[in-house]
Amino acid sequence: MLLTSPTTHWMCSQYQMLWVHFFAVYILTGFICLLLHHEYKYIALKRLSYFYSSDPRPHQFTILVRSIPSSSSYSISDSVESFFREFYPSTYVSHVVIRRTNKIRSLLIKAKNLYKKITQLRKHNRQKNKQGDYFRLFGQDDGLIDQYGKKLSEIEQNVRLHQSENSLATEEARAAFVFFKSRYAAATAFHMQQSVNPTQWIAEPAPEPRDVYWPFFSESFMRRWISKLVVLVATTLFTLLFLIPVVIVQGLTNLKQLEVLFPFLTSILTIKFVTQIITGYLPSLILQLSLKAVPPIMGFLTSMQGYISHSDIESSACNKVIWFTVWNVFLATVFSGSFISLLSVILDPKHIPERLAVAVPAQASFFITYVVTSGWTSVTSELFRIIPLLGSLITRPFSSPDDEFEVPSLPFHRDVPRVLFFGLLGITYFFLAPLILPFLLAYLCLAYIIYRNQFINVYAPKYETGGKLWPTVHNTMIFSLILMHMIALGIFALKKLSPASSWMLPLPVLTLLFNEYCRKRFLPIFIAYSTESLIKKDREDQNDPRMAEFYKKLVIAYKDPALLPFQYTSNTDDLFDPLLS
Amino acid sequence: MLLTSPTTHWMCSQYQMLWVHFFAVYILTGFICLLLHHEYKYIALKRLSYFYSSDPRPHQFTILVRSIPSSSSYSISDSVESFFREFYPSTYVSHVVIRRTNKIRSLLIKAKNLYKKITQLRKHNRQKNKQGDYFRLFGQDDGLIDQYGKKLSEIEQNVRLHQSENSLATEEARAAFVFFKSRYAAATAFHMQQSVNPTQWIAEPAPEPRDVYWPFFSESFMRRWISKLVVLVATTLFTLLFLIPVVIVQGLTNLKQLEVLFPFLTSILTIKFVTQIITGYLPSLILQLSLKAVPPIMGFLTSMQGYISHSDIESSACNKVIWFTVWNVFLATVFSGSFISLLSVILDPKHIPERLAVAVPAQASFFITYVVTSGWTSVTSELFRIIPLLGSLITRPFSSPDDEFEVPSLPFHRDVPRVLFFGLLGITYFFLAPLILPFLLAYLCLAYIIYRNQFINVYAPKYETGGKLWPTVHNTMIFSLILMHMIALGIFALKKLSPASSWMLPLPVLTLLFNEYCRKRFLPIFIAYSTESLIKKDREDQNDPRMAEFYKKLVIAYKDPALLPFQYTSNTDDLFDPLLS
Repeated sequence: MLLTSPTTHWMCSQYQMLWVHFFAVYILTGFICLLLHHEYKYIALKRLSYFYSSDPRPHQFTILVRSIPSSSSYSISDSVESFFREFYPSTYVSHVVIRRTNKIRSLLIKAKNLYKKITQLRKHNRQKNKQGDYFRLFGQDDGLIDQYGKKLSEIEQNVRLHQSENSLATEEARAAFVFFKSRYAAATAFHMQQSVNPTQWIAEPAPEPRDVYWPFFSESFMRRWISKLVVLVATTLFTLLFLIPVVIVQGLTNLKQLEVLFPFLTSILTIKFVTQIITGYLPSLILQLSLKAVPPIMGFLTSMQGYISHSDIESSACNKVIWFTVWNVFLATVFSGSFISLLSVILDPKHIPERLAVAVPAQASFFITYVVTSGWTSVTSELFRIIPLLGSLITRPFSSPDDEFEVPSLPFHRDVPRVLFFGLLGITYFFLAPLILPFLLAYLCLAYIIYRNQFINVYAPKYETGGKLWPTVHNTMIFSLILMHMIALGIFALKKLSPASSWMLPLPVLTLLFNEYCRKRFLPIFIAYSTESLIKKDREDQNDPRMAEFYKKLVIAYKDPALLPFQYTSNTDDLFDPLLS
Repeated sequence: MLLTSPTTHWMCSQYQMLWVHFFAVYILTGFICLLLHHEYKYIALKRLSYFYSSDPRPHQFTILVRSIPSSSSYSISDSVESFFREFYPSTYVSHVVIRRTNKIRSLLIKAKNLYKKITQLRKHNRQKNKQGDYFRLFGQDDGLIDQYGKKLSEIEQNVRLHQSENSLATEEARAAFVFFKSRYAAATAFHMQQSVNPTQWIAEPAPEPRDVYWPFFSESFMRRWISKLVVLVATTLFTLLFLIPVVIVQGLTNLKQLEVLFPFLTSILTIKFVTQIITGYLPSLILQLSLKAVPPIMGFLTSMQGYISHSDIESSACNKVIWFTVWNVFLATVFSGSFISLLSVILDPKHIPERLAVAVPAQASFFITYVVTSGWTSVTSELFRIIPLLGSLITRPFSSPDDEFEVPSLPFHRDVPRVLFFGLLGITYFFLAPLILPFLLAYLCLAYIIYRNQFINVYAPKYETGGKLWPTVHNTMIFSLILMHMIALGIFALKKLSPASSWMLPLPVLTLLFNEYCRKRFLPIFIAYSTESLIKKDREDQNDPRMAEFYKKLVIAYKDPALLPFQYTSNTDDLFDPLLS
């Protein structure tokens, strides 16, 4: 009796502690949902007020039509003209057919490289002139410059030939930008199925002119669909196969395994400092470095999926990187790595909560280190932009001072998934290892200050979507909540606190219902504008005298940069001048 | 050596037989997909040509707007008028606000019952008059008729009071039918989000006037959403709990279990004829009788989900009945019944193919009997319409000869799921027990002849959807194919024919890709008409002199039957006449 009494007391108090955890989960979920709702509403209102206060923009009056049926007797341009003249006689303004400019683009790259070579040689000559050895190499370099100059002017002629109307007529892609008189007319055109055949005349809202991704205009319905499928398969394979380095990293965190693999290291591994570095810092550093390559790869893969704008590509790549991170960083670490064990977890859905409950708390210390190594370092290196800094230091000697400096833009699919993943860590470890929270708080404060500074002083936006990326953030937070509920469910089941475990079941259902409500209440605002807002905005413009000028600009707003006239030869002529004088 | 050689030879030949099965699965899938594609295309073209050849119909020019925001200063009618006058000034014609008519409807039912009673009493009296006992009961019945007549006229006054404009003004529902000048204008209105708040002014295409389901006009966004969720939960629970009678049926098929439960039956159960009936016929008969109740129950549940048309209700109920049948007839029979064992199968997705491969072939004889008992009998009873025949035989003595005879319409959600389920049986058992095929063929031939006859001579369509139900058929066939692939996968894995098993994996993927292609190519045609067709059709009408008259009719096309004037008292007055003469 004397022995059991403290045990039961201890068990009772432990049970009570578990109930505290239970209520913490409920309260946290409610609080986060409240914040999410508030934020969704706030950003939706911001998006609307941004639209109301914006000047007329070309992309609001434009749609992109793809899969235009080709016929032998008419050109694409003619069939676009006749189709929209027939069905939108009062609102159709004009159109621009998109051309295949791959050839011109490769010629332009060649020309740019030649131009760079010529400027470098020229600089070299000048330096030599200063050093006084006029005659030894002058002739050689001069000959080279002449040769390159000839090549350049040849390429330039070639480009002009390709840019001429006659040859462009044969390079019509089956896609066109179509311009309308009003925002409402453009919106009705892309909301409705145009043709009897739903795979032809597919219309979508046009992106901003500067946002258009010109290089990859996949045209036909089938080709786009197939390329999309191929890219999705490739992305999935990449996400799954990436686990191999993660496994190696996981091996490094286990000292004993390391000693077995490399017996000669035993003497070094007994030094406390070394073991601390290896177990604490090195694994996440390696992981982090290999993860650096992921966003560009995902961006590259997504760009082949047939999207027409940079914003769509980055938004889709952002989603891919989030899933990649959840799978390869969170789940792979939690279930310590092997692909087979991960798959077996996924294929046995009944036991996922219990397995998570066993595995997730065990990795708390790893993720605390991860927040410090990956989070803190990434955000501070963001302040100094170390990689671009090093890059510019290395390339500066080889670049000419006339090179234009491009203001960089923030790659969404690199930074947003990282911040969201730390949110996921915070939510899932909130009631398992609250020690992670101060580290995360420090990260988030740092990130807030630093990104605020970067947005104001460093980056310039490449395009403006009006908050279209917010639903991604919302969805990721909802996923984090559901993951947290599954872990809680598993833990209460493991600790044999079955009432808590069964009272945990309504929570994911309620969260999903909340998400469904938000999807219905807010998501449509992020997809398209309503009749009400469009017509109000159109009426405001009706009496604006500047609209006539706007329509003139509208028609020439969408121009493939490969079709713009280019200036290298005149520049090189300038470069020749001092040589001849 | 002599012993092993025939064994290996036998094994080889068995392996070859399995490969025959393998190729049969591939060929059948390809053939069915080809047929499905052909049929989808054919029906899409039929739908389009039906649209092109149709006269102007009110529902083509009308949208239904729900969740109209209510304000204290304006009536719903005023706000609809001002909203559409503002945003669709050139195409808006008029609108009809929907009224809450529950009270009137219940009064009308009372009036109808009273009217029936009066006519019956009247008939009774006449018969008595003929029999000569004029004076014994005359006064009593006459008093009753008088009493009922007074009540009826009271109710009638009450109904007229409720039907008057003044009292209807307070009963405005937050929904309205809005009429437009052209089909295209109506289509743009329901394709686009109307209001800044996506949960207000929700527009959808209007159903045909005769197709409108007036009783249940759930109004607000939240109420409809909640009722939808509740109905979905109720349907799921109903589908799951229905298994109890199925378990009993399964118990009956097992003679030994029956003898243990009812020892006194042992003597009867030894008679061969009785055992044959019990094992072969009785189980599926009981199952079939209890299944008869399912379509009406599903129809009733679906009607509370907030649909506005009979066609939507029947189409949604049809889907529910299909899932119900697959779960409760196919899966429950295959995994012999218990709810827990079924759930354990679903929650262990890795082993579903193997479990199916073990269980499905074992039930082949049950399903052959099922085709005969359920299929053949249902289709032949359809010819005689036995239940309505019995019903009319029983009720005839109590009904008056003046009762209007309503031409029946085919309840889609009763008959379509049954035919589709036999399709599923045919596809899944095609390579397991081809013996089922002649029985199915007989069923399908019978069904073709009988339903053709019924459509031409018996049923009258209650509404016309233009083939909108076809995607349901297509999806069910695709599901059947995937189920068949899973069974084949399991069987080849069980028989240790691993190359066949792994070469089976691409087939479901290809089938799903085919389905995805069909969704993109054909499904949009079944959801809405394209700009091209709408505008062409509108232009045809522009010069039609009958259009002025059509617009007049359009405005009064949507009228709640509860608000129509009604005629009972004059009829009863007629009934009184001969009594007074």
